[in-house]
Amino acid sequence: MTTPNRIAILGSTGSIGTRALDVVRDLGPQRVQVRALVAHNSVEVLARQVREFRPALAGLTCEGAREAWESLLPAVERPLTVYGPEALTAAATLDEVDTVLTATVGAVGLPATLAALERGRTLALANKEVLVCAGGIVTALAARRGARILPIDSEHSAVFQCLAGHAPASLRRIILTASGGPFRRATLDAMRRATRADALAHPTWQMGEKITIDSATMMNKGLEIIEAHHLFGLAGEQIDVVVHPESIVHSLVEFLDGSVIAQLSVPDMYLPILNALAWPDRHPSPVPRLDLASIGQLTFEPPDEERFPCLALARRAIAMGGTAPAVLNAANEIAVARFLAGDIALLDISELIARTLDAHPPTPSPGLEQILEADRWARQEVESLCSSRL
Amino acid sequence: MTTPNRIAILGSTGSIGTRALDVVRDLGPQRVQVRALVAHNSVEVLARQVREFRPALAGLTCEGAREAWESLLPAVERPLTVYGPEALTAAATLDEVDTVLTATVGAVGLPATLAALERGRTLALANKEVLVCAGGIVTALAARRGARILPIDSEHSAVFQCLAGHAPASLRRIILTASGGPFRRATLDAMRRATRADALAHPTWQMGEKITIDSATMMNKGLEIIEAHHLFGLAGEQIDVVVHPESIVHSLVEFLDGSVIAQLSVPDMYLPILNALAWPDRHPSPVPRLDLASIGQLTFEPPDEERFPCLALARRAIAMGGTAPAVLNAANEIAVARFLAGDIALLDISELIARTLDAHPPTPSPGLEQILEADRWARQEVESLCSSRL
Repeated sequence: MTTPNRIAILGSTGSIGTRALDVVRDLGPQRVQVRALVAHNSVEVLARQVREFRPALAGLTCEGAREAWESLLPAVERPLTVYGPEALTAAATLDEVDTVLTATVGAVGLPATLAALERGRTLALANKEVLVCAGGIVTALAARRGARILPIDSEHSAVFQCLAGHAPASLRRIILTASGGPFRRATLDAMRRATRADALAHPTWQMGEKITIDSATMMNKGLEIIEAHHLFGLAGEQIDVVVHPESIVHSLVEFLDGSVIAQLSVPDMYLPILNALAWPDRHPSPVPRLDLASIGQLTFEPPDEERFPCLALARRAIAMGGTAPAVLNAANEIAVARFLAGDIALLDISELIARTLDAHPPTPSPGLEQILEADRWARQEVESLCSSRL
Repeated sequence: MTTPNRIAILGSTGSIGTRALDVVRDLGPQRVQVRALVAHNSVEVLARQVREFRPALAGLTCEGAREAWESLLPAVERPLTVYGPEALTAAATLDEVDTVLTATVGAVGLPATLAALERGRTLALANKEVLVCAGGIVTALAARRGARILPIDSEHSAVFQCLAGHAPASLRRIILTASGGPFRRATLDAMRRATRADALAHPTWQMGEKITIDSATMMNKGLEIIEAHHLFGLAGEQIDVVVHPESIVHSLVEFLDGSVIAQLSVPDMYLPILNALAWPDRHPSPVPRLDLASIGQLTFEPPDEERFPCLALARRAIAMGGTAPAVLNAANEIAVARFLAGDIALLDISELIARTLDAHPPTPSPGLEQILEADRWARQEVESLCSSRL
């Protein structure tokens, strides 16, 4: 018998957060206990979660949600609740928390992540922008405090599982798989004309809108290259991408001798979440078993760097170093929002990011303030580039 | 710097033995040193090996090869040489040997294997009959003496690599891949008429004749199921087979949660041999790197148990237990020899094995003598079944 893993979930009402609570429900209170749940403003979903999991702390990062929250849950049922962005840090630093699961989207999760690592807590990381923007700070802090980072992205979870039991010095490279998204087979011309609806029609994964657009541009994979660079201490040239439309092989690692280890499963975020919450144990899951003979074939193709310039942009940001990845991430966030709002075309996203990187002299070894400043600058830069075009 | 791995190779002039010496040559004397080389009667190949690797001991299991050997190598170049079957045990028990690589074919390698394990030596095992016939004795002895068994079969090496770093209790099943052999797409009728040449035309692996016929009948995979049963302590139902004609995925393991880890590489026995001789280290190898995007697709299909009854026979032998797997193995060896001699048809092989198992009341928990007796009995039984048919 092990003691239960006491967790805080930042972003509990989003797609990862709700799936994480499915995992928690299945593992049961002997294995996992929920200490804190934080949402943005989805008070009804959060109320159901609080009634079921009885956390000591709840949080709503949107201050304006306070009234709805208080009217929804009678005081007797309502846990201590923190409102505003500081709810994230309050949950991450709550006493008797072992693991902080960051399922927030964007750089907003960064201060809470650092606060959790400062306390030596295990980080179950689903918020890729945290590593993309501040990977150097995050990994150095984790190393200094002896805190473990368990990735929840399916690709990084795969790499993590493949590397277990093998000496880091034996690794030659990792190969991240990419579904290829809805435009895998599209011509450049069709991509120029792609609508919001076209781009949101992801063939395999059910995800949030922002991540689905990132998948359509393959910036998702670009961000993952940057994440992997930090998580596994690899140079950009040690991180390859292969397009694998079935999303069964979640990533691969190649050792010095040429032997390759891969992780496979049916595509369901339940598994990387379970892996992070139960690691190093494994427990039966309701996810259907992989039946390769029924699937019949797994296909692989090289990514088309011309149609998907975001891959090269990510490598360029790694090479520029310092604040460049934070700028790439912020520029992408604004550009994707503009695309979702119907203001710009799909291929404008990479164009805007490239022009923003062009205009950015990166600060080497930045501190948190410099990263946040670069993030702010990049957002303004993309907005002003958009305005000058509209 | 680690100390060199001092090895004895039993069966150094066969396909595995010569490939093992390629690995030894590439690793260099700082990493591996050859203490003993034993062949059957290939004196010219053995002489070249002895001149290059300068073992302290040579062996020729065929007594009749003595004269040719002594005339080929002048006394001053000739290491201490042992003639006859005891050469295998002499090499396995030679002083200053860390690892015994058994690349012999058939039950002949068994006494030397046990002698090596008795001394706590690492066993690099390419002789599958050793585990098939005497798996219970071999694994119990290895456990008692703290000796490590490193499999060299590509499938078991794959499973071994996939299991590294994962708790045995987390394992649900393993999935051995099979090329499907030359008759993967053949009709039952075509298999009835198959010639020796048809059966020797293996699509992917270059191997000895016996193993190639085993691949054509899929008894190769049947024997591997029995091996895996012993090596990894799994029940027959925990060992599945999937046909994978490209021979790129060498096997897979499925954990309790549904996550699957696979090992892949271009098909070349160099890699499992290197893995066993260098484990837990990895070294660069001349084996071409795996390029999934160039390969394009990996295919999987269920094995056809009707056309390949050897799979069910292997599971039946596991279920019968005791001496039954030794009987299956011996019956198969004689039946394959009869097929290679042109005496019987391909599908007679499984038929003869089935009838031999039918006639065998297995001895539970057999000792070595009982296993060897069952082996002898099965050989005679198949010979007499053949004679009565011819």
